[in-house]
Amino acid sequence: MSMTGVLRPGHIQIRVLDMGEALEHYVGAIGLRETDRDDQGRVYLKAWDEYDAFSIVLRETDEAGMDFVSYKVDCVETLDRLEKDVQAFGLETQRIPAGDLNRCGERVRFVIPTGHNFELFAEKEVLGRTGISDTNPEAWPADASGMKVRRFDHCLLYGDDIEGVEKLLTEVLGFQLTEQALAEDNETQIAVFYSCSNKAHDIAFVRHPEKNKFHHASFLLETWEDILRAADIMSMKEIDIDIGPTRHGITAGRTIYFFDPSGNRNEVFCEVSNWYPDYPVKSWTGDQIGKAIFYHDRALNERFLSVVT
Amino acid sequence: MSMTGVLRPGHIQIRVLDMGEALEHYVGAIGLRETDRDDQGRVYLKAWDEYDAFSIVLRETDEAGMDFVSYKVDCVETLDRLEKDVQAFGLETQRIPAGDLNRCGERVRFVIPTGHNFELFAEKEVLGRTGISDTNPEAWPADASGMKVRRFDHCLLYGDDIEGVEKLLTEVLGFQLTEQALAEDNETQIAVFYSCSNKAHDIAFVRHPEKNKFHHASFLLETWEDILRAADIMSMKEIDIDIGPTRHGITAGRTIYFFDPSGNRNEVFCEVSNWYPDYPVKSWTGDQIGKAIFYHDRALNERFLSVVT
Amino acid sequence: MSMTGVLRPGHIQIRVLDMGEALEHYVGAIGLRETDRDDQGRVYLKAWDEYDAFSIVLRETDEAGMDFVSYKVDCVETLDRLEKDVQAFGLETQRIPAGDLNRCGERVRFVIPTGHNFELFAEKEVLGRTGISDTNPEAWPADASGMKVRRFDHCLLYGDDIEGVEKLLTEVLGFQLTEQALAEDNETQIAVFYSCSNKAHDIAFVRHPEKNKFHHASFLLETWEDILRAADIMSMKEIDIDIGPTRHGITAGRTIYFFDPSGNRNEVFCEVSNWYPDYPVKSWTGDQIGKAIFYHDRALNERFLSVVT
Amino acid sequence: MSMTGVLRPGHIQIRVLDMGEALEHYVGAIGLRETDRDDQGRVYLKAWDEYDAFSIVLRETDEAGMDFVSYKVDCVETLDRLEKDVQAFGLETQRIPAGDLNRCGERVRFVIPTGHNFELFAEKEVLGRTGISDTNPEAWPADASGMKVRRFDHCLLYGDDIEGVEKLLTEVLGFQLTEQALAEDNETQIAVFYSCSNKAHDIAFVRHPEKNKFHHASFLLETWEDILRAADIMSMKEIDIDIGPTRHGITAGRTIYFFDPSGNRNEVFCEVSNWYPDYPVKSWTGDQIGKAIFYHDRALNERFLSVVT
Repeated sequence: MSMTGVLRPGHIQIRVLDMGEALEHYVGAIGLRETDRDDQGRVYLKAWDEYDAFSIVLRETDEAGMDFVSYKVDCVETLDRLEKDVQAFGLETQRIPAGDLNRCGERVRFVIPTGHNFELFAEKEVLGRTGISDTNPEAWPADASGMKVRRFDHCLLYGDDIEGVEKLLTEVLGFQLTEQALAEDNETQIAVFYSCSNKAHDIAFVRHPEKNKFHHASFLLETWEDILRAADIMSMKEIDIDIGPTRHGITAGRTIYFFDPSGNRNEVFCEVSNWYPDYPVKSWTGDQIGKAIFYHDRALNERFLSVVT
Repeated sequence: MSMTGVLRPGHIQIRVLDMGEALEHYVGAIGLRETDRDDQGRVYLKAWDEYDAFSIVLRETDEAGMDFVSYKVDCVETLDRLEKDVQAFGLETQRIPAGDLNRCGERVRFVIPTGHNFELFAEKEVLGRTGISDTNPEAWPADASGMKVRRFDHCLLYGDDIEGVEKLLTEVLGFQLTEQALAEDNETQIAVFYSCSNKAHDIAFVRHPEKNKFHHASFLLETWEDILRAADIMSMKEIDIDIGPTRHGITAGRTIYFFDPSGNRNEVFCEVSNWYPDYPVKSWTGDQIGKAIFYHDRALNERFLSVVT
Repeated sequence: MSMTGVLRPGHIQIRVLDMGEALEHYVGAIGLRETDRDDQGRVYLKAWDEYDAFSIVLRETDEAGMDFVSYKVDCVETLDRLEKDVQAFGLETQRIPAGDLNRCGERVRFVIPTGHNFELFAEKEVLGRTGISDTNPEAWPADASGMKVRRFDHCLLYGDDIEGVEKLLTEVLGFQLTEQALAEDNETQIAVFYSCSNKAHDIAFVRHPEKNKFHHASFLLETWEDILRAADIMSMKEIDIDIGPTRHGITAGRTIYFFDPSGNRNEVFCEVSNWYPDYPVKSWTGDQIGKAIFYHDRALNERFLSVVT
Repeated sequence: MSMTGVLRPGHIQIRVLDMGEALEHYVGAIGLRETDRDDQGRVYLKAWDEYDAFSIVLRETDEAGMDFVSYKVDCVETLDRLEKDVQAFGLETQRIPAGDLNRCGERVRFVIPTGHNFELFAEKEVLGRTGISDTNPEAWPADASGMKVRRFDHCLLYGDDIEGVEKLLTEVLGFQLTEQALAEDNETQIAVFYSCSNKAHDIAFVRHPEKNKFHHASFLLETWEDILRAADIMSMKEIDIDIGPTRHGITAGRTIYFFDPSGNRNEVFCEVSNWYPDYPVKSWTGDQIGKAIFYHDRALNERFLSVVT
C-alpha cells in the first residue's frame, strides 16, 4: 500500500468561551454538522465530505485555544510502533482510552517540542459522508448549509522549538517539509509546512517565543467562488474577518482568515493538491515573507504574528 | 514516510500519425512544453506544474494508441522489490536500460492482464516546474499557453481481464480500488478506478473484449472556469470534442473528452483530491451506469464504449 | 432619461399539464418564489433579483406552451402611444383590464406576425427583491433555494414571419437586432436576437413553418459555477437536460437547455451585458450555424430545431 | 429606440508622470491595446470588447489626475440638444473641434459643479472589437494579454457640490441615481452612483472638500476568477494594490483597487447588470458606510477617503 503510517489530521479539540455562540459559528456559519455530545459537555462536529464520526471537538471553558490535535494512522500496529518510536525519540507518551472521545479508539498523546498536545489514533467510527451515499453518490449534498466546508484540513501552530518539531515530524512520524519561509538571514525557519500525504500541508508551524499557541484551524472549500460566498456569509453573520479573500504565496492557496466568537482563528481555503515525496522543498526568502504569507498584499498584517490563542 | 512504493503516473508514450499535427495539438492547444527529442524522433513533453523532465512521449507511426504507461516509484530499492513481486505474481518482466528514454533511469516493463505495457521506474531528471522557481514561487507561470494543463494525471485503459488487473494492482503494486461502476447484475465490474495516492484515481480500466486498448490520457486543470476556457480553445482550434464540459458521477470530476488529430482521446478535468486508504469503495449500480460516467446527461454516448485506440 | 419605451420582459404565461409537478420544477428546482394565485388557478412566481410582483405565470391546461409574453414599458403614456403605433402598423390590439392578472395594470395585447400573443403593460405592483432590503442590501438572499435564478431574462419563439416581426420590433417597438444566424444562402435569417436595452437579447426568434411555437424561457444566473450547480441539481432532481452545460456562439452566453415536466423548454444562462444602439449587428454565416447555437459541439442537436411547445 | 441620449462612458484622459511606465501598466499589465498616438504625445488605448477607437487617453505631464471624462451620446442632434440644455442649466460650454482627439468627432465640454471637466460627443471611429470579427465572432480573443479587461466601465470622482451634480445629471443629462451611501445624519449623501443605461453605474461621486479630484477609473472583468487572476498579475508585476480582491456593498460588485505608477487609482471589477429606470434607489445608512464600500472588511481603509489625484 502506498500510503501508510500517519494518514491525515483526524480531529482537533478547540476551547470556546460559550458553546451556544460557538455552535452558531461552527455549525450555523461554517456549516459543520453536530454528530455527538458527551457527558463533559463537549460537542462533536464533522464536515460533509468526511467519513469519520467527527473532526472538530468543541469544549467550553474560560480560555480559548487548542487542547490537542490528533492524526489518524493506518492501523493499530502502526499506532503501537509509532508510540515506541516517539518514546525512543525521548518524549513521554500517554495512552488515552477508547471512548474518552465518543466513537474514537485509543489515542497516544505526547507533548511535541513546541509545547502542543499531539495525538495519534487508529480507529474511529465511520458515519459516512453527510447526505451522500457510497452507492450512486451525488456530487454534493443538497442539504449542506453555511459555508459548506468539505473537511478539517490542517492547523497552524505557534511555538518555540521549530527545529525539535521538524526532527520529530520528519524522522519519527513520516512527515515531510514541503515549504518554508525564512528569516532575514535566509537560514532560520520562520514558517514551516509539513505533509504526511499528497497534500501541500497537513500541519504547519510558525516560530514564536511562547509555547503551545494556536494560530488557526483550516477548512477546505473547493473553489474561489466558494471563498467569495464564505466571505459574504461572514459579512451577513457579522463574523470578524482577519484577512481575505486573498491568496497565500506558500501553497498558492486561496484563503480567508477569520475568528470564531471566542477569538480562535479559522481559515477557509482551497488549493490543488500538489505534494509528492520526491518534490523539492519550496523556500521563501526573508525579504519576501510578506508575499509568502499574503501573496496580494505582499505584507504581513500585524495580527498574523501577534494574535494567537 | 507515509507515501511509499508507487507514487504517481510518470509518463505515457502515445502513438501519433503525424508529429507536426500532434505537436500543434499537445503543445499548441493543450499547452504542454517540449523538453526533448531523441534519435528515434520521439518528442518529450511536460506540463507546467510537473518537476520531472517529461510526462508525455509522442511517437510517430501509422497506428494510434498507447505504447506504454509508466509509474514512478519512490526509490531504486522499491523498483527492485516490485520487479520481484511482479515476477512472483507470474508475469515476465523486462529491464529497459536507463537512457532508452532520454533523462530517464531504468524501467521495469511487464504486460498486465488486460494486455497493456505497464512500467515502473525510479529515476528521472528533474527540470523543475516550467516558468516557476522553487524559491519565492509565483502562483502560476506567466508564460503558460493554450489550455495551461497542470499535469498528466491518469489514463483510462480498455481490456478484458479486469479481475487480473485488480489482483495485480492491489496485491502487488499497492494500488487501491476507489470507485467502480457495476454491470446490470450489480456484481460484474464495468469500470474500475484505482489510486496509489490521495488522488481519486491514478489509473482506470473499463471491461472490453479486446486487449490493450487505450481510452484516454487525462490532464489536470484547476477550476471549472479552466474547463470552459479549454472547451472554447477546442472550438477556436477546431479540436473534436467527444463530450463536455460536463461532470463525471464517478469522482465527481468536471471534464471534457476530446480527440487528438490521430484519434487518441484526451481529457482535461478538475477535481478535489479525496482518497485515503481507509475510505470505502464507492459503487454505481448497473441502472446508474450512465450517470456514473456522465453525471448530467445520465446516459453513455455511443463513443464512450466503442471508440478506443 | 436614456432608457425609454419598452424596458424589459415583464412576464410570460406558460401552460403546464400538472400544476403540482410544475411548481416542484419552477419553485423547487429553479428556485422561483410563489407570490400569488388567482381564482383561475394560475400561480404567480418571481425570481429573487426582480422587484415586480411576478415574472412567470403558470396556467394548468392540457397542452403545454406559451399563452403570451408581456413587456414592461416606462409609463402609461408610452403604453398609449405604442398601442396606437401598433394599430398604425396594422395589427389589432386588445386592452386587457387591470387586475386580469393580479397586481398588474392594463395590458395591450396583439398577435405578432409569427402568431404569438405579445403584450405591453406599464404598471405592476412592486414587491421588492426577495429577501433583500433596498436599505443596506446584502449581496444575495440567504434563503434563496434551488438554482437561485436571478430573473426571467428573455424568451425564444418559433414562427414563420420573421421579417414581419423584425419590422414590428424595430420600427414600432424600439427593439434593435443585435445578432443573427443566417441560412446557407447567407441572406435568409434563421435565428434573430433583439434587444430593447443594454442586454444582448430581450427576445429571440427562429424561423419555423408553424406559427406561435414556444422554444424556451430563459433565467439568468451569474456565473459558470452557477451553471454547473444548476446542472447538478437537474441530475439530482431527474430533470431532463436538452443540452449543456455549454456555451452559445451567439451572445457568447454559457447555458443549459432543459425541460419542465410538461415539455416546455427552459434555459439557465449567464453572460456579460454588451449591447449599445451604435454597435454593429453580429452575423453567423450559414456554414457556422452549429457553432452559432452550440459553440462547443459546433452542431445542432436534433431537438433544437424540432422540439417546441 | 429604447436607449437614447447619453449612452455610455466614451473615454477618459488620464495624466501620467512617465509615459513608458504608464504603458507598461495600462498595456502590459491591464491589457489595453494601443490604437493611436498624436502629435501632443498622447497615447490612445482601447479594451478588447470595445468597438470605438479608444476609451483611455494618456497624457504625460508632471501632475497625475484626470483631464476630462467624455460620454458618448446617440447622435449629433442629441449632442446639439444637450449642449443647449447644459447652457440653460447655467453652465458655459465649449466646443472642441473634431480631430482634437484623433478619430473623435466634436466634443462639448463643460465644468460640472464638482469642478471636473465633463464632455459629450456623438462620433468616434469604430475599429471593432480587438481580435474578434463581427462575423462568426469567437467567444474571446485568443491574443488578449495581461488582465484582459473588457471595457472602460465608469469613473469615480471626488468633489464638493454633490447636489449640483445630481441636478445636472438627472435633470439635464438623463442619468438616474441608482444607489447612495449616506452620512451619519442619514440624509447627506456621501457617495452617489448614477446610471445612464442598464448598468448599475456609469459614473459615481464622493463628497469631498476639494473640487476636481479623481478617485479611480474602472475596467470591467467577467468573473471573480478573473479578479483573482488580476490580483496575481499585480503581485507578479509589483503593482501597488489599494484593497481587494473583495466585494463592494454598493452594486455588490467584486473588485480590486490598485494604483498606476503615477498614483492614479484604477479598479478592475465584475458585476451583473441590474438597473432599470423604475427600480428604487438603494441606500446605505450612515452606520453602514464601511460595509457599503467594502462589504467584507466592513470598514473604510484610510486611503479610500484621502488618496485622490
